[in-house]
Amino acid sequence: MSRYAIGVDFGSESGRAILVDTADGRELATAVYPYSNGVIDKRLPLPDRDVKLPPDWALQDPEDYLRVFQVTIPAVLRDSGVDPADVIGLGIDFTACTMLPAKADGTPLAVIPELRANPHAWVKLWKHHAAQPEADRINATAARMGEDWLPRYGGKISSEWFFSKALQILDEAPDVYAQADRLIEAADWVVWRLTGVETRNPTTAGYKAMWSKREGFPDREYFAALDPRLADVVDTKMTRDIAVMGERAGGLTDEAAGWTGLRPGTAVAVANVDAHVAVPASTVTEPGRMVAIMGTSTCHMVLAPDEHLVPGICGYVEDGILPGFFGYEAGQSCVGDHFAWFVEHAVPGRYLAEARDRGIDIHVLLQEYAAALKPGESGLLALDWWNGNRSVLVDAELGGLLVGATLATTAPEIYRALVEATAYGTRVIIEALETNGVPVNEVIAAGGLAEKSPLIMQIYADVTGKPYRLSGSSQTPALGSAMFGAVAAGPDAGGFATIGDASRAMARLKEHVYEPNPAARAVYDVLYREYVRLHDYFGRGENNVMKTLRGLRANARGEGA
Amino acid sequence: MSRYAIGVDFGSESGRAILVDTADGRELATAVYPYSNGVIDKRLPLPDRDVKLPPDWALQDPEDYLRVFQVTIPAVLRDSGVDPADVIGLGIDFTACTMLPAKADGTPLAVIPELRANPHAWVKLWKHHAAQPEADRINATAARMGEDWLPRYGGKISSEWFFSKALQILDEAPDVYAQADRLIEAADWVVWRLTGVETRNPTTAGYKAMWSKREGFPDREYFAALDPRLADVVDTKMTRDIAVMGERAGGLTDEAAGWTGLRPGTAVAVANVDAHVAVPASTVTEPGRMVAIMGTSTCHMVLAPDEHLVPGICGYVEDGILPGFFGYEAGQSCVGDHFAWFVEHAVPGRYLAEARDRGIDIHVLLQEYAAALKPGESGLLALDWWNGNRSVLVDAELGGLLVGATLATTAPEIYRALVEATAYGTRVIIEALETNGVPVNEVIAAGGLAEKSPLIMQIYADVTGKPYRLSGSSQTPALGSAMFGAVAAGPDAGGFATIGDASRAMARLKEHVYEPNPAARAVYDVLYREYVRLHDYFGRGENNVMKTLRGLRANARGEGA
Repeated sequence: MSRYAIGVDFGSESGRAILVDTADGRELATAVYPYSNGVIDKRLPLPDRDVKLPPDWALQDPEDYLRVFQVTIPAVLRDSGVDPADVIGLGIDFTACTMLPAKADGTPLAVIPELRANPHAWVKLWKHHAAQPEADRINATAARMGEDWLPRYGGKISSEWFFSKALQILDEAPDVYAQADRLIEAADWVVWRLTGVETRNPTTAGYKAMWSKREGFPDREYFAALDPRLADVVDTKMTRDIAVMGERAGGLTDEAAGWTGLRPGTAVAVANVDAHVAVPASTVTEPGRMVAIMGTSTCHMVLAPDEHLVPGICGYVEDGILPGFFGYEAGQSCVGDHFAWFVEHAVPGRYLAEARDRGIDIHVLLQEYAAALKPGESGLLALDWWNGNRSVLVDAELGGLLVGATLATTAPEIYRALVEATAYGTRVIIEALETNGVPVNEVIAAGGLAEKSPLIMQIYADVTGKPYRLSGSSQTPALGSAMFGAVAAGPDAGGFATIGDASRAMARLKEHVYEPNPAARAVYDVLYREYVRLHDYFGRGENNVMKTLRGLRANARGEGA
Repeated sequence: MSRYAIGVDFGSESGRAILVDTADGRELATAVYPYSNGVIDKRLPLPDRDVKLPPDWALQDPEDYLRVFQVTIPAVLRDSGVDPADVIGLGIDFTACTMLPAKADGTPLAVIPELRANPHAWVKLWKHHAAQPEADRINATAARMGEDWLPRYGGKISSEWFFSKALQILDEAPDVYAQADRLIEAADWVVWRLTGVETRNPTTAGYKAMWSKREGFPDREYFAALDPRLADVVDTKMTRDIAVMGERAGGLTDEAAGWTGLRPGTAVAVANVDAHVAVPASTVTEPGRMVAIMGTSTCHMVLAPDEHLVPGICGYVEDGILPGFFGYEAGQSCVGDHFAWFVEHAVPGRYLAEARDRGIDIHVLLQEYAAALKPGESGLLALDWWNGNRSVLVDAELGGLLVGATLATTAPEIYRALVEATAYGTRVIIEALETNGVPVNEVIAAGGLAEKSPLIMQIYADVTGKPYRLSGSSQTPALGSAMFGAVAAGPDAGGFATIGDASRAMARLKEHVYEPNPAARAVYDVLYREYVRLHDYFGRGENNVMKTLRGLRANARGEGA
């Protein structure tokens, strides 16, 4: 008898459910719900008041998340014809850190009429970047106090992370902070709403909230040093009781069963993060095989049996990706976004006209032209910092650089140079990991950019010298969440005892292997050395022109330096 | 009774005549003849044979130049209604170095049937860049022999100059070299055809053929060291008898009178160079006032009473621009070409569509958007080296650089950054001159780019801190040639005794003065310091990435490193 699991993947713009067969991971149905209020970055979606948001804000509506369950799960049940009784488990993954304030019963502050017009009552999406002053305070205070958790995060906490956002609420809306009984990741909040049980997943706690299995959270004195009112934030608004990955958080409530059409009591897994669930869904359950989720930005993850300090990575967390391993994560903040910017702002109309005439995507056309070039033939080299540099420089203030243009330089040549630049950026990350004791023998890529671009995959293999393979599913995170759902259900219900077992049964890779081409590697080795020299010159303080330019721009716009 | 003069300006694509009143420089008529064979850079224009040209070649057809006289002078006489008897003089200016091999009677080798299929028999246009190996030999040999003329040219002779081209003929077509009784600038050749008198003008001799009034040409030993067959090139194929600027070369022959409709014997001035005749035509007959001819590239000229070595300028020549002064010349190889490249290769279609809808030029549209930005607001900085750097680095192998781009960077922001980069390049030249004893107090700009772009003029004034004014004529070189025609005719015929007298009577400036804006200057001073730092880092050998990229590109294309 077949058993099924459902995975729900919450992205930035929409939520997506898939229903898979637990025997082999086969995908029977999929459904997407685009959030009705999307990313809220200009004004609050209020019918009766106009509340504008400052620059760098990015909010979401918590009720959009519940609508994902209400719309997509009935849809996949209907489309697959699967009997809800045969669905043994449900897992979810989320963007992170995406967090919200709630009451003790789970009611989000954003739905409380007297708080609804306060932007701080809403969900802060991962890419809410308005908490930089708070992040700066968190870093400066930690450095001053010699906090031993700071090196685990490459020496810097991001403005995107949990306590930066929490501190911004306290700074700017102390009344909202006071009325919040809970400050919680949206990932955990939706599991709470499905099961009636409040759990806190170890992934976001570890990667976004400075928690570790051995040390717990930073101590009370540290939070008090940031702000006396923050001293007891963990004990009053969070919990020290962090769940174990793969555990069953609870069973579906009657209410949630009504939303979804699933049986009450259906196992729901502890929440997880989109990139991280993609690791076992890409067949990776052991050290040495990096997973790269390549989309607008790229997230790199690799497991190791032991603990290493790797300067400039986003962080490493014990049991943070898979139980039994230290999970290392690094990031590139501008990959698909880079190519999208280029098409929007720097590609002449004749290329778009040709793509339209031939009925192909403009990226496919540019890659076709770029593929006709040999390594080195563009004469160009770029630093892929259009959106700053996450790993290994951890510096959002850096800017892009293109060198070598001539009067004969064409758009496809620049496009190829930008692709190559992101590949050099990946090689910097891989070399930082390997130099510090974390081997990377091959890379499994997932995400839309990886699947659609054989040229990009080959360039990455040639630049890094590592074979690249593609995850078998085109919905890798959702598949990973379904796998965790099957683990939450457990073997007695027809699921799995461990995520490793689930991965071996349900995950697969595409056949093709992008092997590094030795001739191309030789040229890229030369170019990479030049890249590293520019990377260090502009990125490590020798020439701070990028920051000077950013300061002048801010001055010109009257934003202060 | 009114007197008139005609100036003929030979450009890269066409020749242009104007007929002006010698009393006040008023332009009565103008006519243009586009060369029927244009710039010959792909194949020779032969009906019966297909002779392809290698990369970097640029030739012209000498007969096109004669057709300019035959077409345009009758046209300006007809359109103005002026009596040919009232036209007292004719002057011409030419691109340089543009040279050709000829027989002793002036017959160009290109029209001799048995030589016509040899590309080396044709005119080598200024932008023929295939003689770089010869230029390298000329420089290395001069450096080895300690030739004292080398420092006058900023330490480097260009592949565009006279002996680079002559040596290429000898290297690659010794039979053509042997059959050439004369190697001559096209400027001097057309005057020879008009007058029957072979003269050699001091401007091209001085700026392009290493001649000086005090030292003459390099000596026989130097030429012999380059190639024994070249030892007597000056005495056998040129002359040591260099004419004086402003002199009458001769009178129109009967044949040339027949071509043009002018009277036989009409005074014809010694030839000159397009940029140089623009100096008195821009009212400049004294030190301290720089003339900048701004087009696809920019030529800067300034006079000084004395001799200074200025590293990296194109050269200085005594009496080379105006009698009685040392004329200093510097250049930027990528100005209008820079903006044209940008529009062709990097501007999205929606900007072109908007320009089309509004019935304006795309450059006007981009400048409109760019003008709305404050200095520093783009957050960008560029090195204007898309076509290498002429002054002060004299390095064609350098490439362009853009730094500071973000995902919000727009095409008008980049456009403005490229304009600013060319302005920083001008400031480097001005500072090199001033540091070495050649003051620049104001700049007179001429050329299409200057006239059409108030934004560009203001940015140049703000960046350099010098007031910018515009030459009064939109055909400055042709006006300058007409002025020299009036000097050749002399005061007895109703002309002038000196070019200074002609300039005071016939030249004027436009009213508007672009004064440096102090607030903008303060920001540009900061940006300029950053520009200079990048300029020196990438341009003076500390980081040779641009050359590495060029080498890799050549390798990839199978061109050798």
